[in-house]
Amino acid sequence: MKTHTVYRTFHTDRRREFVRITEDVQQAVDDARVNEGLALVSAMHITAGVWVNDDEPGIQADALEWLDKIAPASWQEPPNAVARELLPTGGDYRHHRGGEDNGDAHLQNLLVHHQAILPVTDGRLDLGPWQAVFYREFDGQRDKRLIIKVIGE
Amino acid sequence: MKTHTVYRTFHTDRRREFVRITEDVQQAVDDARVNEGLALVSAMHITAGVWVNDDEPGIQADALEWLDKIAPASWQEPPNAVARELLPTGGDYRHHRGGEDNGDAHLQNLLVHHQAILPVTDGRLDLGPWQAVFYREFDGQRDKRLIIKVIGE
Amino acid sequence: MKTHTVYRTFHTDRRREFVRITEDVQQAVDDARVNEGLALVSAMHITAGVWVNDDEPGIQADALEWLDKIAPASWQEPPNAVARELLPTGGDYRHHRGGEDNGDAHLQNLLVHHQAILPVTDGRLDLGPWQAVFYREFDGQRDKRLIIKVIGE
Repeated sequence: MKTHTVYRTFHTDRRREFVRITEDVQQAVDDARVNEGLALVSAMHITAGVWVNDDEPGIQADALEWLDKIAPASWQEPPNAVARELLPTGGDYRHHRGGEDNGDAHLQNLLVHHQAILPVTDGRLDLGPWQAVFYREFDGQRDKRLIIKVIGE
Repeated sequence: MKTHTVYRTFHTDRRREFVRITEDVQQAVDDARVNEGLALVSAMHITAGVWVNDDEPGIQADALEWLDKIAPASWQEPPNAVARELLPTGGDYRHHRGGEDNGDAHLQNLLVHHQAILPVTDGRLDLGPWQAVFYREFDGQRDKRLIIKVIGE
Repeated sequence: MKTHTVYRTFHTDRRREFVRITEDVQQAVDDARVNEGLALVSAMHITAGVWVNDDEPGIQADALEWLDKIAPASWQEPPNAVARELLPTGGDYRHHRGGEDNGDAHLQNLLVHHQAILPVTDGRLDLGPWQAVFYREFDGQRDKRLIIKVIGE
């Protein structure tokens, strides 16, 4: 059995961003010289996720708008009445008592999930035609790490 | 280390459907001749998920109703005022600009998650007594693929 | 390739509870004598999840309040108007027709996800500085099991 581990650091310009990483994961598989196995792609932070989806800007904008409605940020005006009611009772996240401002990022991250496992077949990521892999930053503008671990043979 | 890969194609009669696949995954484990390991079950599309839950029709109907409220389809009347407010601002998903009509399926799929990893012990899927595995179609009526990859020994 | 499987039984005092299990998973990795590999941590029930997040009580309280709003329990008064509208049409979950009262737990569990895969590097869980692992009980006060399966070498 072979294993190969790669760490990648992201420092996004914006607080929230999608970064395509399909090619980075394939590169890790190439470097692992694994033909058959699995690639775990997992954010090492709790306000960043890994999303496997279509590389289509409309979907990303839709998802961001929707996430802001069901897990609203307290650092911006709620986009509508539903979002306002889904904010914590009292108006702000308890997590912010310690000086943080990313309570929404924890919930949005829960919805997006912080990791994905990609199958590797014949040395290639075995994805469907519209599946691309994204690092999904919810609280960026600082260094954050992702781990890619390939196992197989 | 052994690996074994199976692809299965689904073509559901309805747009949205649950298809039980526990036995298909066990068959893949049998064919892999793996006693100890993991089975990755992953949709190869971005509007289909894998759900591990009770094989109980009430839960499935509850989940479908609930998903339609928090990630509403724009091709049907929103079921209530909350769903209407959770639709995109302006009324339709940006993803639909290109002619698609499955913007909701992308969001619902995010909630259900597109994959699961099942433990294999003594040659059997090591599931709890109420855990069954389902392919969860959100935009069917056409061929869509799922990958099952078993690794172990 | 080595594999090692540990089952742990939880019996929480309260219906809903977070139980930190980072150290239990590390112990399983130690016992597996695996230096490089993966640890699957997966609830064997459909109303319990595995959550990787900050060990900070405010986040847990925020998440519980938020989950109660978007997947409301029918055994308690909905916390606000949005939660009331997100309850099933007719007021109660179909799943409750058989005598169950945990319809909300199935939905909340979907959001939290029932499993996580942890990378193992140099014999240690390769987690970020704020990542802790929790068993997330949604319907406790009875025995429920979790599986930890470590594979690698």
